[in-house]
Amino acid sequence: MPTPTDQAEFLRRLAAAVAPGAVKTGADIPSAALHDWSGEPGGTPLAHVTPRCTAQVSAVLALCHASGRPVVPQGGLTGLAGGAVPSTGAVLISLAAMAAVEEVDPASGLMLVQAGATLHKVQEAAAAAGMMFALDLGARGSCQIGGMIATNAGGNRVIRYGMARDLVLGLEVVLADGTVLPMLNRMPKNNAGLDLKPLFIGSEGTLGVITRAVLRLHPGVAGANAALVALPGFDAAVTLLRHAQRALSGRVSAFELMWADYYAAALTHGGARAPLPEGAPLYALIEMQGADPDADRPAFEAMLEAAFEQGWLADAVLAHSQREVADFWALRDAVAGLLAHYTPSVNFDVSVPLAQIGDCVAALRTALAAQFPGLPMVVFGHAGDSNIHLITGPITDHDPAGQAIEATVYGIIRDFGGSVSAEHGIGLHKKPWLGHSRSPAELALLAHLKASLDPRGILNPGKVL
Amino acid sequence: MPTPTDQAEFLRRLAAAVAPGAVKTGADIPSAALHDWSGEPGGTPLAHVTPRCTAQVSAVLALCHASGRPVVPQGGLTGLAGGAVPSTGAVLISLAAMAAVEEVDPASGLMLVQAGATLHKVQEAAAAAGMMFALDLGARGSCQIGGMIATNAGGNRVIRYGMARDLVLGLEVVLADGTVLPMLNRMPKNNAGLDLKPLFIGSEGTLGVITRAVLRLHPGVAGANAALVALPGFDAAVTLLRHAQRALSGRVSAFELMWADYYAAALTHGGARAPLPEGAPLYALIEMQGADPDADRPAFEAMLEAAFEQGWLADAVLAHSQREVADFWALRDAVAGLLAHYTPSVNFDVSVPLAQIGDCVAALRTALAAQFPGLPMVVFGHAGDSNIHLITGPITDHDPAGQAIEATVYGIIRDFGGSVSAEHGIGLHKKPWLGHSRSPAELALLAHLKASLDPRGILNPGKVL
Repeated sequence: MPTPTDQAEFLRRLAAAVAPGAVKTGADIPSAALHDWSGEPGGTPLAHVTPRCTAQVSAVLALCHASGRPVVPQGGLTGLAGGAVPSTGAVLISLAAMAAVEEVDPASGLMLVQAGATLHKVQEAAAAAGMMFALDLGARGSCQIGGMIATNAGGNRVIRYGMARDLVLGLEVVLADGTVLPMLNRMPKNNAGLDLKPLFIGSEGTLGVITRAVLRLHPGVAGANAALVALPGFDAAVTLLRHAQRALSGRVSAFELMWADYYAAALTHGGARAPLPEGAPLYALIEMQGADPDADRPAFEAMLEAAFEQGWLADAVLAHSQREVADFWALRDAVAGLLAHYTPSVNFDVSVPLAQIGDCVAALRTALAAQFPGLPMVVFGHAGDSNIHLITGPITDHDPAGQAIEATVYGIIRDFGGSVSAEHGIGLHKKPWLGHSRSPAELALLAHLKASLDPRGILNPGKVL
Repeated sequence: MPTPTDQAEFLRRLAAAVAPGAVKTGADIPSAALHDWSGEPGGTPLAHVTPRCTAQVSAVLALCHASGRPVVPQGGLTGLAGGAVPSTGAVLISLAAMAAVEEVDPASGLMLVQAGATLHKVQEAAAAAGMMFALDLGARGSCQIGGMIATNAGGNRVIRYGMARDLVLGLEVVLADGTVLPMLNRMPKNNAGLDLKPLFIGSEGTLGVITRAVLRLHPGVAGANAALVALPGFDAAVTLLRHAQRALSGRVSAFELMWADYYAAALTHGGARAPLPEGAPLYALIEMQGADPDADRPAFEAMLEAAFEQGWLADAVLAHSQREVADFWALRDAVAGLLAHYTPSVNFDVSVPLAQIGDCVAALRTALAAQFPGLPMVVFGHAGDSNIHLITGPITDHDPAGQAIEATVYGIIRDFGGSVSAEHGIGLHKKPWLGHSRSPAELALLAHLKASLDPRGILNPGKVL
């Protein structure tokens, strides 16, 4: 343990590494920095620092490395796995003051941004240049691009555009010892040696601090065609998805499944209205974004008609305006209302191979019903990406019953060869279950890389591994 | 140096690790294994081994690791950078006997294959299931999927589907010490800890040997709409590309640029016919694949008409059949004939940020014309992916003049912030230039990773770094 004198000296040097007033300690640490959206309990940090440039991030890390002082990088604090909650004695590094959009180059299809820029700001800057930054999720007003890359964020349109990993052309990262790693590549094709960026995308701040990024932009869209369909069962959903992807030449921009229990709860507790009657086992929201939704309509309608004739759909309703597209999405966005209703709840973000989602959901229902008769649960998700979400409650994951629910669900996910975290990451929350989805050889290599890149273990200690 | 007794003992143990007859030495080593398509000179290997399963690959690597014996993994030997040519005294590991397509799962959109399967075999297996493996390149009959992943292969349709990296869901890799690393993920979304696969994709056999892969499949296509257009200049090409991507909602599946010198040479020496007259500074082949090209035609034509009205096109010809689409591609595929004509030639595979390709090509022409007056050269490439190719000749890169051409070209690529290898990799051929495209901090981290994962340096020694 450092002596009080050592600590005072450390804080003096920390203050000297950044701009005046950029270090807060004790009660001056912003209370918002003490937790994230996960609700995971954190420790008491030593200090909160807000660097203004990469050189300051580097100086802070070099100092912490030399002192063996833990560091927790913080973005918009919207993570759901606890990856950004404070460790005891840590220096919290906020990227909030590095929020500039430095350059937008629509001709090259890219933009250069600082890590602290919010998703909303990035999306607006792309749109102002006639392009689109395709990653989108509910926390867009708060989440920061650096945090999204560090957690390899997903969201609603992964099926079309991929996850954060797929939208990053270049990165600037500061390593544990303060070394700045400039990898600000601007080319979709670059095979000049191994790509090092993936070491940091999804590493949840354990291998480096992301300071800048070159983001890939897509052509802008004007709106979408969308339909809500009722399905006779899961196999029909897969058939419909593959049919739609083929018929629309890969333009499907969302394929969201809602099981009957979710659909009913969204109407009852989520405040959504019902474009289709209840009673089907499964509903899907299928969407195709485009530059000219009216011109795209005939192809979208023909796709649905062919599916109807084949008997893959029990019922369907087409959105006739962008307003109706938004109404369909309100069903899916009813999650917020549902979470409030079920509070406290035990929630899951998991993935299994797409073709097995139906069997997996059935197995989950059977096991949970046997173990916890009458447990309320709803199932929905980005099924086109193999990703399902499950909400159970009211119950908390601090209760033995909540922990038993987790053990049951993650055990079944493991048996299906799935992932205990599809898009939220591991952080603190899912550490106990990481071994369900990664082999011992992989865990050993992860630990080896961590020790190799951060030999003093200062970067986000206790997270992920 | 091992004694002759040591070496005999090593070979005895090597033979015991695999099936009878699977080890060749001396004059029995297949002559095809002594070089690849790069023409880079190799050393004299000790042995050639053909394992039949992952366990045998693991046993071979464990033995070589214990003995400090160099290993060169070999796929289809179609690489253009010398990544698979033998090192002196090395054990060549051929993956040719591990060529099975183990599973095709069209519902989940994936297939599981062994590393030695040729691209052609993989494409055929996907097509038989109504799906498409979207990576395509000329060497499809010979190149193997393991080698394509190890070199992060690109090809003609990267603009739509990405490089090998983007088409791999899961990998099985054997590390230098024989540890099998099972990462056979089947989900598009999986954030259960850092993704380790990217350590091996594009590592050119220096960090592990790929033995199996889970590949991502796309919906099948029935054909394409395509046009050959004459452009007033490079800026018009960028404008056309962005217009087409927006108007076609991202369905552009190829955007190949051909400068006037390439177009003329393709007609004169490449055996192609001329759909448009010569005389324009730049030509583009623009293609949109789809499940129903006839149904897609109106959108494609409307896109071209709008471009014409805006003055972005000087001339255009639309393919009216799949035969005519193939004719347009013959212009682009005339590269083989051109290479024969210019033999020996010094060729380049480079990338620069898309918006700067025009200026970069102009700078290359000016510099080469000043230094080597009258030097024949042609320029073309996958410009939609930022990738250009340059052929100069007749001259060889073993001549001082050839080396001076390389120094000039790669120097300009460096000044434009580009990559000295867009899609071919580094291997032996581009090692001298790697520092033009990677920072000292990146090179240091690459070396650190290499030492960390392959402490005895047995994996493909002398390649890349």
